[in-house]
Amino acid sequence: MFEGKRDVGAVASVFPTPIALCGTYDSAGKANLATLAWAGVCCSEPPSVQISVRPSRHTHAAIIERREFTVSIPASSQADIADYCGMASGKNVDKLAAAGLDSIRGKFVNAPVVRQFPICMECRLTHRLEVGSHDLFVGEVLASWIDEKYLDDLGVSDLLSLSPIAYAQLPGGGCYYAIGQSAGKSFSIGKTLLDKR
Amino acid sequence: MFEGKRDVGAVASVFPTPIALCGTYDSAGKANLATLAWAGVCCSEPPSVQISVRPSRHTHAAIIERREFTVSIPASSQADIADYCGMASGKNVDKLAAAGLDSIRGKFVNAPVVRQFPICMECRLTHRLEVGSHDLFVGEVLASWIDEKYLDDLGVSDLLSLSPIAYAQLPGGGCYYAIGQSAGKSFSIGKTLLDKR
Repeated sequence: MFEGKRDVGAVASVFPTPIALCGTYDSAGKANLATLAWAGVCCSEPPSVQISVRPSRHTHAAIIERREFTVSIPASSQADIADYCGMASGKNVDKLAAAGLDSIRGKFVNAPVVRQFPICMECRLTHRLEVGSHDLFVGEVLASWIDEKYLDDLGVSDLLSLSPIAYAQLPGGGCYYAIGQSAGKSFSIGKTLLDKR
Repeated sequence: MFEGKRDVGAVASVFPTPIALCGTYDSAGKANLATLAWAGVCCSEPPSVQISVRPSRHTHAAIIERREFTVSIPASSQADIADYCGMASGKNVDKLAAAGLDSIRGKFVNAPVVRQFPICMECRLTHRLEVGSHDLFVGEVLASWIDEKYLDDLGVSDLLSLSPIAYAQLPGGGCYYAIGQSAGKSFSIGKTLLDKR
């Protein structure tokens, strides 16, 4: 079609995606964490996140059973922990203990808030959509626990210091990245074009 | 709860989110683009993306009518264009012309593939979920057009050169970032923890 472009086929080429760790209590009451590359925000009001989980995962059954979960956002310095929690299964190991993490029950939901991640949201399941290999769960965010050191009066102000993981699932294997330099502010840098017309 | 943590309230604190530009033909047949901060991948098979759109937006009606759309991923050097396409409305302006962009009809769907963005996916609507302020649309990816210069035989290999936008909607205003340094490879850097247990 276009010179210089190639169709690589039916590939979801969205870059970057956030890395989310879904926290649940399993049927035995054990806190568990699952790393998810398919996650994001899906609504402003009520503030809601979407996470996609394969039905085979231990976390899937826990979300269905409890209808409550947490979503933690790790720092890029915690990429090894995130990676580990995406490989091991809570069916046969205590991932939090293995990764040196600890948690307490949420204030609003019956799910583990993990201490070591800079951000942890408490979520209540509102929707489930069976898309194919993954079920898409929508969770309404009821609380958002953030390390004080990244906050000012309004909320998160120091994202470069917090340094969340920007993930890219590439054909040759997935890669974690840190956030790089600022490329401008929204509802601002496009004003030149807005004024031009 | 935890010392050193504060609950900033019901805030979807997922960082970073990708920036997606949804391309549609409106009811008059005009190509239009809408910048979306709430977007991501939601399924591996079939490869599917999720985009969330307010019902008031021109793009919302076009998606409902056409049931086909494109999703472009801009480079961080195009953050001004992305920002502009999130402020202007296709109801009263030709945003592609104003931004110096051009497009052709997709190979698989009746929606505009934009030439200037490094990545443009052709999508067919498969699900719609009314979450609240936003409707969540799921699109199955049928084609993924990528600039040859970022590709090798497998697909995207040079993400740092492509440099997609990592967005953060912060309380003090949204910020665009470039991708920064690598923080490791997935299914790899967590193996030390996996072996330890």
